[in-house]
Amino acid sequence: MTPERLYLFDTTLRDGQQTQGVQFSATEKAQIARALDALGVDYIEGGWPGANPTDSEFFRAAPQTRATLTAFGMTARIGRSAQNDDVLAAVLDAQTPAVCLVGKTHDFHVTTALGATLDENLAAISASIAHTVAKGRETLFDAEHFFDGYRANPAYALACLKAAHTAGARWIVLCDTNGGTLPEEVGRITAEVIAAGIPGSHLGIHCHDDTGNAVANSLAAVLAGARQIQGTLNGLGERCGNANLTTLIPTLLLKEPFASRLHTGVTPQALAGLTRTSRLLDDILNRVPLRSAPYVGASAFAHKAGLHASAILKDPSTYEHIDPGLVGNARLIPMSNQAGQSNLRARLSAAGIEVAPGDPRLARILDSIKEREDQGYAYDGAQASFELLARRELDLCPEFFEVKRYRVTVERRKNKYNQMVSLSEAVVVVKLGDKKVMSVSDSMDETGHDRGPVNALAKALAKDLGPYQAAIDDMKLVDFKVRITQGGTEATTRVIIDSEDGQGHRWSTVGVSPNIVDASFEALLDAITWKLIRDQGQPVPR
Amino acid sequence: MTPERLYLFDTTLRDGQQTQGVQFSATEKAQIARALDALGVDYIEGGWPGANPTDSEFFRAAPQTRATLTAFGMTARIGRSAQNDDVLAAVLDAQTPAVCLVGKTHDFHVTTALGATLDENLAAISASIAHTVAKGRETLFDAEHFFDGYRANPAYALACLKAAHTAGARWIVLCDTNGGTLPEEVGRITAEVIAAGIPGSHLGIHCHDDTGNAVANSLAAVLAGARQIQGTLNGLGERCGNANLTTLIPTLLLKEPFASRLHTGVTPQALAGLTRTSRLLDDILNRVPLRSAPYVGASAFAHKAGLHASAILKDPSTYEHIDPGLVGNARLIPMSNQAGQSNLRARLSAAGIEVAPGDPRLARILDSIKEREDQGYAYDGAQASFELLARRELDLCPEFFEVKRYRVTVERRKNKYNQMVSLSEAVVVVKLGDKKVMSVSDSMDETGHDRGPVNALAKALAKDLGPYQAAIDDMKLVDFKVRITQGGTEATTRVIIDSEDGQGHRWSTVGVSPNIVDASFEALLDAITWKLIRDQGQPVPR
Repeated sequence: MTPERLYLFDTTLRDGQQTQGVQFSATEKAQIARALDALGVDYIEGGWPGANPTDSEFFRAAPQTRATLTAFGMTARIGRSAQNDDVLAAVLDAQTPAVCLVGKTHDFHVTTALGATLDENLAAISASIAHTVAKGRETLFDAEHFFDGYRANPAYALACLKAAHTAGARWIVLCDTNGGTLPEEVGRITAEVIAAGIPGSHLGIHCHDDTGNAVANSLAAVLAGARQIQGTLNGLGERCGNANLTTLIPTLLLKEPFASRLHTGVTPQALAGLTRTSRLLDDILNRVPLRSAPYVGASAFAHKAGLHASAILKDPSTYEHIDPGLVGNARLIPMSNQAGQSNLRARLSAAGIEVAPGDPRLARILDSIKEREDQGYAYDGAQASFELLARRELDLCPEFFEVKRYRVTVERRKNKYNQMVSLSEAVVVVKLGDKKVMSVSDSMDETGHDRGPVNALAKALAKDLGPYQAAIDDMKLVDFKVRITQGGTEATTRVIIDSEDGQGHRWSTVGVSPNIVDASFEALLDAITWKLIRDQGQPVPR
Repeated sequence: MTPERLYLFDTTLRDGQQTQGVQFSATEKAQIARALDALGVDYIEGGWPGANPTDSEFFRAAPQTRATLTAFGMTARIGRSAQNDDVLAAVLDAQTPAVCLVGKTHDFHVTTALGATLDENLAAISASIAHTVAKGRETLFDAEHFFDGYRANPAYALACLKAAHTAGARWIVLCDTNGGTLPEEVGRITAEVIAAGIPGSHLGIHCHDDTGNAVANSLAAVLAGARQIQGTLNGLGERCGNANLTTLIPTLLLKEPFASRLHTGVTPQALAGLTRTSRLLDDILNRVPLRSAPYVGASAFAHKAGLHASAILKDPSTYEHIDPGLVGNARLIPMSNQAGQSNLRARLSAAGIEVAPGDPRLARILDSIKEREDQGYAYDGAQASFELLARRELDLCPEFFEVKRYRVTVERRKNKYNQMVSLSEAVVVVKLGDKKVMSVSDSMDETGHDRGPVNALAKALAKDLGPYQAAIDDMKLVDFKVRITQGGTEATTRVIIDSEDGQGHRWSTVGVSPNIVDASFEALLDAITWKLIRDQGQPVPR
């Protein structure tokens, strides 16, 4: 049996933009479109040309993609002809090969939201689809509120689909706009639509996650015969988000009954880039990646339970449903005071440190982790600081330099132009071997703006580290996360710093203190020390 | 038709504890158990007595609950009798009315992970269940890796279930331990188990979210006849988490075919506390609540698209699948430069500010939001700062005081006992009417620990605000979130401060600057100003 083609339609740039807190620039949209294209989706919905300046700007200079670039819009407004609707004209003006028009299919919405008669809406659907088809565009019809509409008035909802189909729409997309429909009903209604005469090869499914079933609903529609899935990367989207393509793609490629019966445009090589693509989107949006995300989350293959971790060491398939490498993810044995010594040895080994089973220092490391986690430290997400802690217990942590003291001042006042300006200044005293070095720095950047006390401290510290200067020159701080947490009985501050070097390697360190500057400085020192160990191994003898 | 009883089994305190980064104390476990009991779940699995000190401590002083408190453990180890297994004895020692024992049902795991014969494992299941039943405990059998086992060797997997059932287990729980099974297969296999002779009234389902289908898998098993669901609050759990009870409960209570055919121990009143319960868990764990969480997320009823927001104003059911009040959540019209003027008016109205449609100041506010969002501000999550921004444009923001300048110093050095200690000190100059007030403060707390520069600034600022002193006395900073973000072309820092007053009201404010102290100070000033407006309305005349 030849596998049937299943089409993937991505709407990260349109419906994903409705996520609370998300605001793409046109440049970011182009960057995401290129990543989607490399992943192998079939359609990229870029936005609604004419609805806002960003979307119009994106379409004016859209990247060349193998995927079919699609402009979103809506059926002509009641009382205007499709030819004379300026909103629809703006959509066509984007000159995309495909156009996706949303229209009403739920009688209640036609009368309440549009204030139109049922026949007027049917006529608007027919005329709008016929118009875009006549303009040579591959046309999709997004049947808004279809499942609610079908429950309320199945004959009318089907009549809307048939109007679009007859007018020449390539795809009729069944939308669960409010996200309230459950998988069994999505499967049953999709099958009924096919039985009513719209072929599955022309049917798409568009789900939202308001009951946590967007993925399952999409799969149910495909099992019933639909051959296009609409969704977004990382499940972005209005309210609870859209069907998560980052989750659906590996399921469709790796799991039965989908893997052998269907094929998509995503290759195994592209699938291995899925975790990276997911992180890229979070980077662009400056969102903390969801650790528990299926397939691509940092915890998706993390084995915290001691029994699981020891079985994994015998055979990974004991507690992993797929090989994490297939989606570009990796196994993780997180460190925490839940973990046993076998976890710890596995994680040390991953850092290149071999310790024999039963070595008494393993228990000391576990105790030390427990004690520091009680103070507010978190080593699950700060691998480099964990490694340094273990090295200190194992006497494998050389002291490259010692910070004797520091002082940092932030001052905010009016300048001579009567503007409020800030100035940060730091003094750091470091002992390098038997030499004491005192360095001072402000935190002014090239544009004359003050970057704050942590930056001033980092610059003062990095100003003269003698023989280690070269090794830290390509380091930069790429993320800085602060949480108020509980340390003993007192609220304290936990800072996690992500650093990156010139080769794009990233590492995370943690600092804890009630004083945010102290906590930051501690994480900063760990970040530098970790890099010196990696690059130099040992202090320069003097 | 009388609705059948469906039982809810919560394992937040056991499987939920396997979440990466989660570490409950015994006190926190008791607090969560009480919240679960108030919600109305039937079983609370408290942990594994004997496996770690926290779990043992929890069971020693477990709270009285209406729900059946359950201790987790495993079937007797191969080579020991159930009577002589000290691990099993520790589980029974917890003296809970119910015991849940996990055992192998997948032949591969029996031979690989246990290193036992298939018959030895069957005997261990029978003997262990018979032993706990003989001790008078309601006994549950967690059939580990059941779906994988059934796929590989259905006869053996079923034989394991029957051994437990025959030995007297009240519940046989089908576990998708690795989380790789899809809903259709869960439904089909559950139906086959019932056909093979284990009644649905004795069957439970335990799913993990590795394919994003834990909720759908649980529903599929219930549709097939299973009458117990195991899950966790907020979907905590190993790897991608367990089936999310916070999502499942409203679906089971509010959606067909479940609502009319089944009933649970959760009342409509308890359901209205669901959002609060979900937040309580995040508070205890110090996790940022997931905005997009179904039903309870802050974005679950947020309408960002302009068209959606205007339809919602006509009739909320146009874009809401349920009334948010049923789960204790609320509708939100977030502010962002996507939003139109109708969004803005609705949100201003919610803050008690009425502006007529078409008022030109609405456009000015939208422009100002857009400009500031370009600089890195985020108003979706900082309602109080949004309100102040709007008030400034509308000339409704009184100036209570003006900060003329400040200076803050953090110094870290050795004290006379040769310990490294920090000291922060702030000077703030404030103009109150025509009076200039200069205040200084360190940030030492009662225990002599330094709390850092933001604390020192807050204390100096609050030291003498004259007539406004009383209004800010009950304010405290309860959360402090920092993100590096993009402001124009430069990385900048965004601080969001959550403040709380004596009555438990919470409000959020935002500050942006490359300098973290400046950004914090800006958010702090907004927090104070917002409270003064709420409590006093106008500055005291002088």
